[in-house]
Amino acid sequence: MKTETTIQGLSASLNPARTARKIIGFVPTMGNLHQGHLNLVREARKICDVVVVSIFVNPIQFGPNEDFDSYPRTLDQDQQLLADVGCDIVFAPSVEQMYAKKPRLTNISVSDITDDLCGLQRPGHFDGVAVVVTKLFNIVQPNYAFFGQKDYQQLAVIRQFVQDLNIPLEVIGVPIARAEDGLALSSRNGYLSAEHRQIAPTIYKSLKAAELELQQGIGLDTVLANIRQTLSAAGFEIDYVEARTPELQKIETFNQDVVLFIAAKIGQTRLIDNLQVKFNP
Amino acid sequence: MKTETTIQGLSASLNPARTARKIIGFVPTMGNLHQGHLNLVREARKICDVVVVSIFVNPIQFGPNEDFDSYPRTLDQDQQLLADVGCDIVFAPSVEQMYAKKPRLTNISVSDITDDLCGLQRPGHFDGVAVVVTKLFNIVQPNYAFFGQKDYQQLAVIRQFVQDLNIPLEVIGVPIARAEDGLALSSRNGYLSAEHRQIAPTIYKSLKAAELELQQGIGLDTVLANIRQTLSAAGFEIDYVEARTPELQKIETFNQDVVLFIAAKIGQTRLIDNLQVKFNP
Repeated sequence: MKTETTIQGLSASLNPARTARKIIGFVPTMGNLHQGHLNLVREARKICDVVVVSIFVNPIQFGPNEDFDSYPRTLDQDQQLLADVGCDIVFAPSVEQMYAKKPRLTNISVSDITDDLCGLQRPGHFDGVAVVVTKLFNIVQPNYAFFGQKDYQQLAVIRQFVQDLNIPLEVIGVPIARAEDGLALSSRNGYLSAEHRQIAPTIYKSLKAAELELQQGIGLDTVLANIRQTLSAAGFEIDYVEARTPELQKIETFNQDVVLFIAAKIGQTRLIDNLQVKFNP
Repeated sequence: MKTETTIQGLSASLNPARTARKIIGFVPTMGNLHQGHLNLVREARKICDVVVVSIFVNPIQFGPNEDFDSYPRTLDQDQQLLADVGCDIVFAPSVEQMYAKKPRLTNISVSDITDDLCGLQRPGHFDGVAVVVTKLFNIVQPNYAFFGQKDYQQLAVIRQFVQDLNIPLEVIGVPIARAEDGLALSSRNGYLSAEHRQIAPTIYKSLKAAELELQQGIGLDTVLANIRQTLSAAGFEIDYVEARTPELQKIETFNQDVVLFIAAKIGQTRLIDNLQVKFNP
C-alpha cells in the first residue's frame, strides 16, 4: 500500500491503472477510521481493481463553532487498518494541497434537500461537502465511490450533484456499521465519556422501537413524539427527530417507505443516526 | 465526422479514443458558427487527436428577457462548416438530454469576478455557464477545452472553477476573430440591420483609439470617458465601458497590463468586445 500526499504523486501512482483501464474504487474519509469506513473499503475491494482511500479533514465543511481543530487525526493507525483490508493507495493531502494559495471563488450548492435536517443546524456544511467531494472526484477520477448510509443526507446530496453535473462515476451507499449495542459507528463517538457512551445506544434503541410502533399502526406523529420523549428522558439535547421519504421529502403518514432521522447531543457530542422502515401494506 | 445527439451515443463514439489514451480536444459552442468558432476548432486540431464540438443553446444561461427562443439555430450549416475544418464528432444534445426529467438542484457559482461587467446586467448568467460547461466537461472528459477571448469574463470564470474544482483538463483561450472592419465576430451580429452593422465597428475602433491614448500617456479615466462619448455619439446605448487587470480586478491607473471592456446595445442587439493593452514602461 502506498501513501500519497500530493495530487501530482497520486496522479503518478494511478496513471498505470488508468492506462490499463482498471476499475478504480474510491472511499473518501476524514480519517480516524472505524469498522464503518473499513466496510466501505471491503465493498470497494469486491468490485474494483484498485482501491483509493482519501484521508482529509476538510475545513470548509466545519462551521465556525464546530470541532475542526479537535477532530481526531490518527494517520498512522488509519494506514495500518487500511493495509489490513486491502486498500491500494491512501491519499492524505494537506489543506494547502487541496486549497491552493489563490483564494477559492467557486461554490457548489444543492438546494431543497439541504434545507433541513443537518442543513438547518450546519449552514454551509453541505456546500463544503459538495466542493471537497467534487474536487476529490476530479483528482481520483474513480469508477465507483463509496459512502456510508449513516450520513444519509450527505449521501443524497452527493447522489444529486453527481447526477446533476454528469460526473462520470457510480455512487454506492453502504449500510450503517454498528457497535454490539447498536450505536452507529462514528469518529465522534471517541468524544463520549464512559457514562455518555452507556447512554448513546438509546438513539438506535428508540429508532428500533419506532419501527415496531409504525408496524403496529401507531401514527407517525406519535412515534416521533415517543422518540423525542425517550431521548430527552435519557439526557439528550435533541437537534431534530424527523421522518422523510427515502428521497428526503416530507411525509405526514406512514403510507410508503419512511426514513427516521435523529440528531442529538449528549454532553458536547452531537450524534446522528437513521433507520429506513419499509412499508408493507 | 459523426453527429451524436445523446450522452450515451457520444460516450460510445469516444470510447475507442479513451481506451487508446488519445488526446481529446473540446470546443463548446451554442452553434450558429462563424470563423471565431472555427478558429477554436483549428487550434484544437493542431494539438489533439480527436476534436469534439458541442452545439447546445443552454437555456439556463439566458435571463427571462433575453434571446433564448430567438437565438439562431443552424445545425445543418454548422455541421458542414465543422466537417470542413476537421471536427471529428459533433455533440448536439436536446435540452431534455442535458437537463433530465428530475429537477436539477445543483448550482455552481463563482464569486468576485462575476460581480460586475456582464455579471451585473445578466444575473445568474455565469452560474448557468458554469453548470453547463461542467456538465459538458464531465460528459466529454477532454484533455483540452478551447474558448474564445471575446467572452473574456466567461473564460476567466471557466479558468477559475476548473482550477478550484481540480477539473482534469487544460483551458486554452483563443484570440478574438474579427471581420475586416474590426467587428468582433459573434452569432448576435446576425441580428444587426444593415445600418447598425455599419455602426457596429465603432466598438473596436474606440478600443484601438483608447490603446493609442493610453500609450500616449492620457489618463485611464479620460480614456474610458472618450470611449463612452464615441459610442454614445454613434448611437449606442452603453451597458458598461470598464478597465480591469487581466485577472479582472479593478484598476485606476495604467501602471500594468490592462483589459478594456465594452458592452453596448445598438438597436436591440447587445454587443461585447475587449482589448488587452500591454504596459511597457
